[in-house]
Amino acid sequence: MAIHMSISSGLTLPLGPEVNDSRLRVGVLGYGYWGPNIVRNFHGQEHSRVVAVCDKSAKSLQRVRQSHAEIHVTEDCKELVTSKDIDVVAVVTPVWTHYELAKAALENGKHVFVEKPFTATVAQAEELIELAERKNLQIMVDHTFLFTGAVKRIRQMIDDGTLGDLYYYDSTRVNLGLFQHDVNVIWDLAPHDLSIMGYLIKEKPEAVVATGEQHLNGVADVAYLTIYYPNKLIGHINVNWLSPVKVRTTLIGGEKKMLVWNDLEADEKLKVYDKGVAIASGEATYQALVSYRTGDMWAPKVEQSEALKLEAAYFVDCIMNNKRPFNDGVAGLEVVKILQAADESLQQKGKIVQI
Amino acid sequence: MAIHMSISSGLTLPLGPEVNDSRLRVGVLGYGYWGPNIVRNFHGQEHSRVVAVCDKSAKSLQRVRQSHAEIHVTEDCKELVTSKDIDVVAVVTPVWTHYELAKAALENGKHVFVEKPFTATVAQAEELIELAERKNLQIMVDHTFLFTGAVKRIRQMIDDGTLGDLYYYDSTRVNLGLFQHDVNVIWDLAPHDLSIMGYLIKEKPEAVVATGEQHLNGVADVAYLTIYYPNKLIGHINVNWLSPVKVRTTLIGGEKKMLVWNDLEADEKLKVYDKGVAIASGEATYQALVSYRTGDMWAPKVEQSEALKLEAAYFVDCIMNNKRPFNDGVAGLEVVKILQAADESLQQKGKIVQI
Amino acid sequence: MAIHMSISSGLTLPLGPEVNDSRLRVGVLGYGYWGPNIVRNFHGQEHSRVVAVCDKSAKSLQRVRQSHAEIHVTEDCKELVTSKDIDVVAVVTPVWTHYELAKAALENGKHVFVEKPFTATVAQAEELIELAERKNLQIMVDHTFLFTGAVKRIRQMIDDGTLGDLYYYDSTRVNLGLFQHDVNVIWDLAPHDLSIMGYLIKEKPEAVVATGEQHLNGVADVAYLTIYYPNKLIGHINVNWLSPVKVRTTLIGGEKKMLVWNDLEADEKLKVYDKGVAIASGEATYQALVSYRTGDMWAPKVEQSEALKLEAAYFVDCIMNNKRPFNDGVAGLEVVKILQAADESLQQKGKIVQI
Amino acid sequence: MAIHMSISSGLTLPLGPEVNDSRLRVGVLGYGYWGPNIVRNFHGQEHSRVVAVCDKSAKSLQRVRQSHAEIHVTEDCKELVTSKDIDVVAVVTPVWTHYELAKAALENGKHVFVEKPFTATVAQAEELIELAERKNLQIMVDHTFLFTGAVKRIRQMIDDGTLGDLYYYDSTRVNLGLFQHDVNVIWDLAPHDLSIMGYLIKEKPEAVVATGEQHLNGVADVAYLTIYYPNKLIGHINVNWLSPVKVRTTLIGGEKKMLVWNDLEADEKLKVYDKGVAIASGEATYQALVSYRTGDMWAPKVEQSEALKLEAAYFVDCIMNNKRPFNDGVAGLEVVKILQAADESLQQKGKIVQI
Repeated sequence: MAIHMSISSGLTLPLGPEVNDSRLRVGVLGYGYWGPNIVRNFHGQEHSRVVAVCDKSAKSLQRVRQSHAEIHVTEDCKELVTSKDIDVVAVVTPVWTHYELAKAALENGKHVFVEKPFTATVAQAEELIELAERKNLQIMVDHTFLFTGAVKRIRQMIDDGTLGDLYYYDSTRVNLGLFQHDVNVIWDLAPHDLSIMGYLIKEKPEAVVATGEQHLNGVADVAYLTIYYPNKLIGHINVNWLSPVKVRTTLIGGEKKMLVWNDLEADEKLKVYDKGVAIASGEATYQALVSYRTGDMWAPKVEQSEALKLEAAYFVDCIMNNKRPFNDGVAGLEVVKILQAADESLQQKGKIVQI
Repeated sequence: MAIHMSISSGLTLPLGPEVNDSRLRVGVLGYGYWGPNIVRNFHGQEHSRVVAVCDKSAKSLQRVRQSHAEIHVTEDCKELVTSKDIDVVAVVTPVWTHYELAKAALENGKHVFVEKPFTATVAQAEELIELAERKNLQIMVDHTFLFTGAVKRIRQMIDDGTLGDLYYYDSTRVNLGLFQHDVNVIWDLAPHDLSIMGYLIKEKPEAVVATGEQHLNGVADVAYLTIYYPNKLIGHINVNWLSPVKVRTTLIGGEKKMLVWNDLEADEKLKVYDKGVAIASGEATYQALVSYRTGDMWAPKVEQSEALKLEAAYFVDCIMNNKRPFNDGVAGLEVVKILQAADESLQQKGKIVQI
Repeated sequence: MAIHMSISSGLTLPLGPEVNDSRLRVGVLGYGYWGPNIVRNFHGQEHSRVVAVCDKSAKSLQRVRQSHAEIHVTEDCKELVTSKDIDVVAVVTPVWTHYELAKAALENGKHVFVEKPFTATVAQAEELIELAERKNLQIMVDHTFLFTGAVKRIRQMIDDGTLGDLYYYDSTRVNLGLFQHDVNVIWDLAPHDLSIMGYLIKEKPEAVVATGEQHLNGVADVAYLTIYYPNKLIGHINVNWLSPVKVRTTLIGGEKKMLVWNDLEADEKLKVYDKGVAIASGEATYQALVSYRTGDMWAPKVEQSEALKLEAAYFVDCIMNNKRPFNDGVAGLEVVKILQAADESLQQKGKIVQI
Repeated sequence: MAIHMSISSGLTLPLGPEVNDSRLRVGVLGYGYWGPNIVRNFHGQEHSRVVAVCDKSAKSLQRVRQSHAEIHVTEDCKELVTSKDIDVVAVVTPVWTHYELAKAALENGKHVFVEKPFTATVAQAEELIELAERKNLQIMVDHTFLFTGAVKRIRQMIDDGTLGDLYYYDSTRVNLGLFQHDVNVIWDLAPHDLSIMGYLIKEKPEAVVATGEQHLNGVADVAYLTIYYPNKLIGHINVNWLSPVKVRTTLIGGEKKMLVWNDLEADEKLKVYDKGVAIASGEATYQALVSYRTGDMWAPKVEQSEALKLEAAYFVDCIMNNKRPFNDGVAGLEVVKILQAADESLQQKGKIVQI
């Protein structure tokens, strides 16, 4: 599964004179579905600009040229990762290529921004983290959702105690396609949830149970993950490529309040419920006293800025100020650990796998 | 867990003269949440009437008296099950009492209508089935959903090939409470789905994986079931007593069409999607050709009659014509088998349990 | 349009001995669509019971007998309104009969509960009010919505200044049927809105503009009402018998807050928005400064009790304590005034009619 | 209200050599809210490109430069409309400037694409139509909605008789803001509906009744239009700048079928209902026989292409092939006629105004 890079030496990019400014120079590997968003957001920042894009597809490169005549395009990854005129490499390619490309970039002294999931294996992630550490370079894994107003608002409600202790985190993330050929539906869709859970939940996950089925092209297209945390907190993720409707709904149950996050809602993405259940303690009788509380619902205003724009600016800031981003390689590794465990559990039809 | 019946002999009920008609005489055990619906529906039928209701609560019996002065009330179960003036006993009590009450009714020559889930164990269900068989009596398990317009319409779409081979059945059935003290959330909510799946899916389930957590009163209040069927069909049930919102949504993915059944919708409970995914067969290249089909959506009209009314009439008809109902003890047993397996899996944190 | 009452004298109803209690005795005229609800709610009250029901349809009377053997049934309105054993007459018949039936009841010394709209003309309403006044009897017009949790909660938000000065009240009340033969869609559906507006809005309406069209049976089946109030408050009601979907949505715009009341929502009927528009005052430049405020949304918990039950209890209380209900004949008259003006405007294709 | 154009002569734009191709050259006047969409869509077409943009705001022009270095920018409208290097002028400025700018463009031999509403008065529209006719130039009024999949699909259902004769067209188009200073809410929002109605409804409107109120800056911010058509077809438009929620819902009632178009739905914008009402004809009795039909609902697949892109391509095609667009000046005039009549009616509180 090696990527055959063309053996060209690290050449100076034929960039025009206006490029000699203080902005970070970003090279983007991959201009498929997500690449244009990466280009647009790093290019539109005050302190960064995209200087080169690499893709195997001539048609993709032509699209770059039409929109951005000033950006160098190439089909040669090697040229980009070795260029002296690039400070940051964004790896926006299929998962199985992340390790090799990110490694080459780090070895050439570039900071790397890697699409989620970080790598195809835990070992790859650990190696990249170690390499970046050694070279004093930053890794950011593109867990875009962590920069949305909704996730930040939920985090705030957890931090300030609004929700109380968490009981469960239950996400449904289903739609028709997009089929990947190199990964199953867990690797495609669950990283969103796993990165959010890693950001919101203070405890580390302990074990995972994954079930699922493959119907069409040899990889699971329907899957269900249960993730066990300490203190009776349970996580569940329902991912499905064969759903006729798109659903992006997460329920979070807390001791004090419960919330529903429907990411497909335009305006009221978060609904917080003043509802709960309490058991009368010290109950001597057989019949425990369960009391329900049902009160108002409340939809807090959520920041509407584009998450990827904020994330790109944050990465640029981290690099310029030599700060470690919170969504760094280690955060990416945590997600890959669960994905790898889930695959192992899935193959054994739900056998619990410790993380 | 025995029920201490008062030792009264089977006495003749003090029923008025107008009762001497040809209608089946029904006695109802239990007048809590669901009992009034049972009384209303068996009482309002052309060929049946309720002649007696038993409940431990004097307050409940008073409610019966207020609404139906002509119905005999008693706190003594024994009186009801042994009465010569009763043809059918409806057991609308907690699960752990079903076996003993139904057994007593059958032994006294009554047909029995038992609330779901049928019994607390597989062995109990098997014994009741055998007993009814021997005495040539009918058992019906109250799987009310099988008599709804929605389920009947889905069954029709499966039978006539509209959906094609099934890929998955995925139900979410969550709400706040109602906490049971004798059963966990699986036994409370999943029987609905399991009975529907038993009715819709031709293949028998092979194994179950259950995960979940208990937060409040010592029984699981959040749980997830995966049910493996032959031919890559996978079932999943998400049940939760701690959800701030009520959800009753089932997705069914078929080879030809997919559907969403939202039982909380007043008018458009079923939405059938002309959507699908196909893999080009005989694909030689690495890159398999996945093609998507997206067409119209269609919400078929669904019968609106009250399901329990239809079910009660059907049971009366089965008894009068000595027919075996399709939701008989065996159908009830199939559900209990999965519930029992799910409990076993749950206790072992997702270990697969064969059914 | 006179109702030909049979000339029977006011006889003593053949009521059983158990009726000799202190509860108010209610007679119900009309047992069609709404009558059973009236019976159920006056019968189930602590201080009232239904002693007789009159309907022209033998089938309807049979339904009464099946449910309530203790209630006397008759096809003779005269018998009911003249009975000495009745304290309150509920008039649940078509609009065009209200006046004559209510008048007969009042003349016979009964308090009257009249279905909405109160009467077919302003003059009729005024006469009934005067008659009740003279005989010291109570009239209640069945504006059930005023007893719902939603309307009471909105009233509270207006009273406590939460919404600020009102800008507009905009209701959409559409569905397929129910076609009335004696009234148009305005008289059928708008009384709900008009009574609510009368309850919520302190100012009296000044004028009405009504447009609409009749497509099928000679009465308007689609209509739009604009109601002008003092202080730039504007009301609008969209009523339609030919809508494929049922809509019951009201928008209320206030200076401080705005709300949406969707009566078809099970749980979140009211949504209050912290949104608004402000114009910078003393603006010297051409370009006025409009500033928008968008904040949280909030769904206050709304009381869930059955409105008609509360209304029936309230009427009984008013009679027993000789209090004037707030939804009295005068409140009913206010609604009829607007309906009559709307008809006049409708016939002149939107000509403004002062109220 | 004249626009003071700077008195510069029609100069040749300083455009680079690559511009000498056969594509139509478009100049865009106005780069505010909608202008960028116009630029993007005319620029991205195979047979057109944007060569110049004019705006009074230096900041807006800078935004053009950042995105499209190759487009000439100017603050001088005169320069643009007189340039020899421009074939088409797009007028994307406030309504009160349309007439003067479009006239100047036509006089200079340019085809014009004018934002909706076409002009501020009927007389202006008529003059522009006559001028274009005389100079053999095309006018297109930007009624973008006519190029959406939803409107085209509805048109098809009307043309092929699916809906049958139309009973009513009822649109609700409300949201918070955007306040205009030169026009009221009718001129801001209703042109969408009026252009769609003009496209869908074969008959010409006969009269309009408009009611409304102004609360903040001296122009109506809430308004209701009733539009009378021949054959009992009635139209209604509810427009409101003070709504806390955004609504874009249109109900269309037909003799055979009825539909709901919710433009805010991502996937199921159109829902067609097999519902209806029929009156038994030749009914001799008092009680007319109304029968309801309720059947399936059906959400036809709707084309998802960007409407403005299709519209721009269509205008280019019309110009190149000397075809008259269906959304020409005359179509724009029809809308202005109703708007002008609505204003007249509004000022007289709902007086009917013939069109």
